[in-house]
Amino acid sequence: MLIYLDNSATTRQYDEVTRVMKEAMEENFGNPSSLHALGLKSEKLVRESRKTIAKTMGAAEEEIIFTSGGTESDNTALYGIAHARKREGKKIITSQVEHPAVLEACRVLEQEGFSVEYIGVDEKCRLNMEQLAAAIDEETVLISVMAVNNETGTIMPVEKIAAMKGKATLHIDAVQGYGKTDLTDTKADLISVSGHKIHGPKGTGALYIRRGVRLPAFIVGGGQERHMRSGTENVPAIAGFGKAAEIACGDMSRRMEKMKKVRDYLAAGLLDGITDIKVNSPEDGVAAVLNISFLGTRGEVLLHTLEQDGIYVSTGSACSSNKKGQSHVLTAMGLSSREIEGAIRFSFSEFNTIEEMDYVIDKVKAAVTRFRRLGSFR
Amino acid sequence: MLIYLDNSATTRQYDEVTRVMKEAMEENFGNPSSLHALGLKSEKLVRESRKTIAKTMGAAEEEIIFTSGGTESDNTALYGIAHARKREGKKIITSQVEHPAVLEACRVLEQEGFSVEYIGVDEKCRLNMEQLAAAIDEETVLISVMAVNNETGTIMPVEKIAAMKGKATLHIDAVQGYGKTDLTDTKADLISVSGHKIHGPKGTGALYIRRGVRLPAFIVGGGQERHMRSGTENVPAIAGFGKAAEIACGDMSRRMEKMKKVRDYLAAGLLDGITDIKVNSPEDGVAAVLNISFLGTRGEVLLHTLEQDGIYVSTGSACSSNKKGQSHVLTAMGLSSREIEGAIRFSFSEFNTIEEMDYVIDKVKAAVTRFRRLGSFR
Repeated sequence: MLIYLDNSATTRQYDEVTRVMKEAMEENFGNPSSLHALGLKSEKLVRESRKTIAKTMGAAEEEIIFTSGGTESDNTALYGIAHARKREGKKIITSQVEHPAVLEACRVLEQEGFSVEYIGVDEKCRLNMEQLAAAIDEETVLISVMAVNNETGTIMPVEKIAAMKGKATLHIDAVQGYGKTDLTDTKADLISVSGHKIHGPKGTGALYIRRGVRLPAFIVGGGQERHMRSGTENVPAIAGFGKAAEIACGDMSRRMEKMKKVRDYLAAGLLDGITDIKVNSPEDGVAAVLNISFLGTRGEVLLHTLEQDGIYVSTGSACSSNKKGQSHVLTAMGLSSREIEGAIRFSFSEFNTIEEMDYVIDKVKAAVTRFRRLGSFR
Repeated sequence: MLIYLDNSATTRQYDEVTRVMKEAMEENFGNPSSLHALGLKSEKLVRESRKTIAKTMGAAEEEIIFTSGGTESDNTALYGIAHARKREGKKIITSQVEHPAVLEACRVLEQEGFSVEYIGVDEKCRLNMEQLAAAIDEETVLISVMAVNNETGTIMPVEKIAAMKGKATLHIDAVQGYGKTDLTDTKADLISVSGHKIHGPKGTGALYIRRGVRLPAFIVGGGQERHMRSGTENVPAIAGFGKAAEIACGDMSRRMEKMKKVRDYLAAGLLDGITDIKVNSPEDGVAAVLNISFLGTRGEVLLHTLEQDGIYVSTGSACSSNKKGQSHVLTAMGLSSREIEGAIRFSFSEFNTIEEMDYVIDKVKAAVTRFRRLGSFR
């Protein structure tokens, strides 16, 4: 029994992706920079993948660069725009609930002399738009906001932000939004996406850079990716990423519909069967995430109990779960310590089923009941 | 017929590496940061690979961080040490024949106010040690030199440099040396290595950071790799890299002996059968590379002619071959334009055979003869 409900941390690759990668590893192993036929074959794989990714983002091919993942894409965008525009202004705006790849880059930029304003959110992780509107000024050169929050599934109002950004460059971290929301019309200057959240390979991502937007390269060297990202192209992973994007984005509405049914069924079942629980995800969030606080329990204990039953969930985001301390997202949402402590994130893929959810509801109910009964003895 | 003699550009993965990666993709797809069993399994794969890589570098596990490749490792080392030590001095020493991943990082650091001295080489790409000795001063905080030159196979005197470095931090770019020379006793502070040059996966590398050496992280975010390299670990590639390192380094002397026989046989055959040629690689270089100028020919034309016969070679390094202009390495060696124009790099793996070399000698002889005969008409 393996019921994987941690798809926002990472996904299992589509078998077709693994096939494409294996073929590239065995047959098309040339270096795209090599002038001979093996190099050209590899270059062609990269080009085809770029075409696919560009299409899923409503972009032109030359607006896409491949990176080693979402974190590198975020760093490239933030450092790049801040450094390119530092003479025009030293203010950056982001939110309190961004991924650490954005928040940590902001901390580094603060040390370099930039001032960063962190916009707050409400109890469903919705951005405080009044605060944002007031924050944007003549000094603001960069706004970085995520498309979808990784812990709650909350969809951020990217289009509204694009309309009010003024002269600031707008970066969207769409690592959790890609393949789940339509990015083809996004009016952003830069968009980060990642392969392994959409059943593609780990170690690969892309950064959309709108035509005309100028920023220095982050990783420098041999001049690959039109000098924007040096290093021998990870051809098999890039090919696999293209395949994953083709499947995930090509079939997005059916996939999301499946996830919505599963999420709604799970939410209803849990709300119906367990008292004292609080849903932290908004109803209109992406259907891939359901964050719930089971009051009077400890998320980490629940996680390990469910694991015994073959159910894999998360307490917060994987990227910060190894660290001490509470989720910065749930904290920013104003949740109480008790609510944060008892929070579990269920995150779905199109491979999860209603039948699985029946089992999950039973097991969660049993675990919460047992924990609450024994709680005072722990 | 496929005779691949471009192994310094990239190698075909060992089949065992592909197997290990496929298994990780299909079975161990968890995010190492996840708290559940799937996360732990992935974390274990990373730990095992780190142990292997550490062993091949004579390092402790905590001295190794995984990166997306040699270029990122080089950038991390150069930017990191320069920024960490900028208050102690602003001088950096490197050579004229480094990989662009080092040279371009130096150019960026020059823009930041560092002064960089580029040490010259002789006609066999051997470092000018007098110039180096004179260059090292109290201001010098960083010396970055490659272990093995990628275009000629020249081995740099790393141990001598380590002995004379003074208070400077020593970084060795061992991307071309790893698996070909013994790094276990290298007295360096930082060493960059890469997976895809030793039949491992593309998109993975490592940086050895000697215990006690402090530098800021280059890619920031979720705090993976003990905060030195954020981003979800590329588990399948890291596992594959470990397997490749285990094979390549475990069997290094046999592999290099095989390559030496093949290289020497090819060199002798070409020297014997073709007039007006000049060997640019030193005899005591790594046996993986043989760089030869066929005077009165054009390397690029030779390359495409040999390609018709199923022989894949390179004109310079793959990483700069896409660019206009002549090899910066051969230029630094003082070669004439004619010598540079006619240069071909043959680079070997343990899978090349003497029988292949008989065929290659024949085909090169024919191609050079034809070119020289027709040369004046082109």
